[in-house]
Formats: sequence, C-alpha cells, structure tokens
Amino acid sequence: MSRDNRENRIRKDNSAEKTPSADRLEGRNSVLEALKAGREINKLWVLDTAGKKPDPILIRILDAAQKKKIPVVRTKREALDRMSETHNHQGVIAAVASHEYVSIDDMIAKAEDEGRKPFFVVLDELKDAYNLGSVLRIADAAGVDGVIIPKHRSIGLDSVVAKASAGAIEYVPVARVTNIAATLRDLKEKHGFWVFGTAAEGQTPYDNADYKGAIAIVIGSEGEGMRDVVQKECDFLLSIPMAGNVNSLNAAVAAGIVIYEAVKGRRA
Amino acid sequence: MSRDNRENRIRKDNSAEKTPSADRLEGRNSVLEALKAGREINKLWVLDTAGKKPDPILIRILDAAQKKKIPVVRTKREALDRMSETHNHQGVIAAVASHEYVSIDDMIAKAEDEGRKPFFVVLDELKDAYNLGSVLRIADAAGVDGVIIPKHRSIGLDSVVAKASAGAIEYVPVARVTNIAATLRDLKEKHGFWVFGTAAEGQTPYDNADYKGAIAIVIGSEGEGMRDVVQKECDFLLSIPMAGNVNSLNAAVAAGIVIYEAVKGRRA
Repeated sequence: MSRDNRENRIRKDNSAEKTPSADRLEGRNSVLEALKAGREINKLWVLDTAGKKPDPILIRILDAAQKKKIPVVRTKREALDRMSETHNHQGVIAAVASHEYVSIDDMIAKAEDEGRKPFFVVLDELKDAYNLGSVLRIADAAGVDGVIIPKHRSIGLDSVVAKASAGAIEYVPVARVTNIAATLRDLKEKHGFWVFGTAAEGQTPYDNADYKGAIAIVIGSEGEGMRDVVQKECDFLLSIPMAGNVNSLNAAVAAGIVIYEAVKGRRA
Repeated sequence: MSRDNRENRIRKDNSAEKTPSADRLEGRNSVLEALKAGREINKLWVLDTAGKKPDPILIRILDAAQKKKIPVVRTKREALDRMSETHNHQGVIAAVASHEYVSIDDMIAKAEDEGRKPFFVVLDELKDAYNLGSVLRIADAAGVDGVIIPKHRSIGLDSVVAKASAGAIEYVPVARVTNIAATLRDLKEKHGFWVFGTAAEGQTPYDNADYKGAIAIVIGSEGEGMRDVVQKECDFLLSIPMAGNVNSLNAAVAAGIVIYEAVKGRRA
C-alpha cells in the first residue's frame, strides 16, 4: 500500500470516529432493515474478509448498497471494534442521515386516514437504551401508530437503541415532545384520547380495561415508574397482578403485556 | 496509610477479583433481596463514603450484614469498578454461596403440595443475561413454579443475570438439565404436562390456548428461536400476532406476553 493510500485510509477512519452516535447503525439486521426501509445511508464500513466469502445477509447488504450507490469502505476488525458503540457490530456499521422525528398531528392524521383511531405509546423518561429498543420492537409488532418520548432526560434514538429494536426503529413513527404531561392533556382535550398508565397502585386490572377508541398507554421509567405530574393525567391506572416477591417487571416486558392486551381489546 | 495496610488492601482486592462471577451479586437491590431471602453471603464490599451518610438502602444492607455478622470491607470506588462485572455496582458487591439449583421432581412436589398443577418455563439456549434476568423477574411476578435451563450452551445464573432479575433470582426455583428435549418428553410422559412453544409458524393463537393443568412454556433463543428437536416436543406452537415489519419480539417480552396470558387462562 502506498503512503498516500494509507494516509487516506487513516483519515477515513478518523472521520468515522467523529460521526455522532445518533447517526450510526451497527449490526447486520439493523443495517439491512434500514436499507429495506429506504433510509438514507451516507457510507458503509464493512469488515474486510480478505477474499473469504461474506455471509448471506452481508451479501444482501452489499448488493443493496451497490444498487443505491452507497460508498462501501472495507475495514479491518480492529477499526470496526474501535468505531463500535454497541460492541456487537457484526462486521457492518452504517453512517445514516439523522433519525427523523414525526409530529403528533401527523401521526394522528395518518391513523385516521387509514381508518383507525390512533393508538400511541408514551415513554416517560425511559433511560435504558435496550428497553427503548425493545419497546419500539413491540410497537412495530403490535401495529402501534406512534411512540412519544420526551426531549429531555430520556435517551434518544442512537445506535444502541437501533440495534435493540432489531430494525423496528426504521418503521415506527417517533415524536419528541418537551412536556409529556402537557402532551397527554392535549391528546385528551383536543383529540378525545383515553390515557392509560401502569402503576403498582393501579386500580384497573390491565385485562379488564376498555382499550377501544383513541388511546395512549404511558410506560414509566425503569426505576421510579411514572412521575406524579404524568400519573395525574392518566384516566386509568392499570395494575398487572404480581404473585411473587419482587413486585415489578422490566419496563419493556410490562409494556409488552399491556400493549398486547390492548391489541386484543381493540380487535374484539 | 502504612505500607502494611496498603499491602493488606491490595491483597484483599486481588482475592476479590478472583471470586468467580456466579458467586457475586452487585447493586443495592440485588444484595438487599439476597439478604432478605436469607441467602448465605460470605463478604460484602461497600463503597467507602468517607464519613458521608450512605443512602437508605445501603443503610438497610449494612444493618442486615451486622445482624448476620457478615464481614464488610469498605472499598474505594476504583476498586469496586475493577471488581464489577455489571458495570453498575451502585456501591455494593457481595460474595455469595453459589446459587443452588433445584431438581425438577422437587419443583413438581412443591407445587402439588401447595395444591397447584405445576407451571414451568423452559428456556432453550437463551444467551443474553439481560433476557434471562428479565424472564426470572416475570416468573416471580407471574407465580411460575420453576424455570428450567440447559446445562450447556446457555448462560448460568451469574451476577449480570442477578442484577437484571432485580432480585427475583433469589426466589424463583431454577433447575438445570443436560437435555431439554428429553426433559420435555419426561414431563409429558411421566407427569402429564402439556408443552407449549412460541414459534413464528405457530398455529395456535397465544390467546386461544388452554393453559390449564400441568404446563411448560418453552422460550427459544434470541436469534434462532427453538431448536427443531425441542420444537418437536411441543404439543402446541403458539403464535403472537405481528402487525409490523420486523416480525419478532425480544425473547423476554414474548415470554412476558405468553406467560401472563397463561396466568389469566389458569385463573379463569
């Protein structure tokens, strides 16, 4: 390799390391889903397999990249490891255009255009990227119309969330708002939503609530649950029966149980 | 600090770092739950707050340790950070007696003694410690009689699992078996169990199955789902409706949805 080429490669690697995390995707499935969903990808770093045949998913990624004329940089494992934030890049990292957030009005309009009363999931200060990714995956699977997260004191849609979402981040509309309590009030007063929250002290059994109509289900943070100001905006506080000693579920698991119960109730 | 003291401290740290991970608990709630559940703790490393008042949970831990005459070592943050495997020790790490596994016969006998048909959750090669911890938490909350994991090619009950389980690891009986398929066959033939698995190609809607009687619900691994040899032992393959694009849920979330549906079915 000539000195020029080498310097060129080093410069490339440096530029990669400066890309902010919200603009990265890592892992074969995350990147493939992004390509399939038509997300704008500026550049791909792919493990240099030195002539060895790459695996089938990587071949599909490379085919798609070629069709879309996305620059592909063959990179050594050590450089990918250094760039990686998820520590599980599986040989592929993508630089993507920043995730686009959606407005709540657009989410409502889309659901109504498609003949549905909107079904939103609201995350009050979720702090764990793995949980946020899991909830996006639930929202995709359950056909939720949109997820609402607070702008502050919460995590954004970064590469760790993208990986945990198994690609769902590309499909689920996400809105960011400055004030969750005010947003819930708006949804109730202007758009006729019913707001459900989960709380240990809930009085409504989660499997005996009326989930029909326009609804928003609020999931509290992992440690403390919902904040009081948010809980006050809930029309119903749902309880999940706890038979054991620990008396709480992982936030994403609780979200899955309640959201799927709501799906059943809306179908019935 | 005298040279002797310093050496003494370094020796202590070394001994700590050699303790195998299955014998560690980290984090305030994990350690407090272990103390409350009466688990044998050999030693506690606690952040040296240098005269500053420790937080309420830590005070409860220290009180309990004093009553049980558990040696407490005041340790600097850097040493705790080095010892930590969860990277979230919250100022307390405990060396505990190894986790005790239970036999399946004992799990069955206990349920029957208490007038219940047993309800087991079987994990086929779950690889993610966070998911295993979340499933133990679900099992505790749902009142499951026992969790069965394979001895090989799966993760054991280490400190990361304990932390993710939020203490449920202290309460949920866990059996380890060498052969999951053979175990399921035994449960069916010798003990009259019905075996349910979750699979994308499932034909039984998860919310339209009969979960009464002695049952085992099998959860597959994160990436590949259940192995064929295990799937063949299932009486019913459950499907969870997927409306979106990604078509799978996190393993612990899927477990939560199915296990809580089973709880409802058994109550009805």
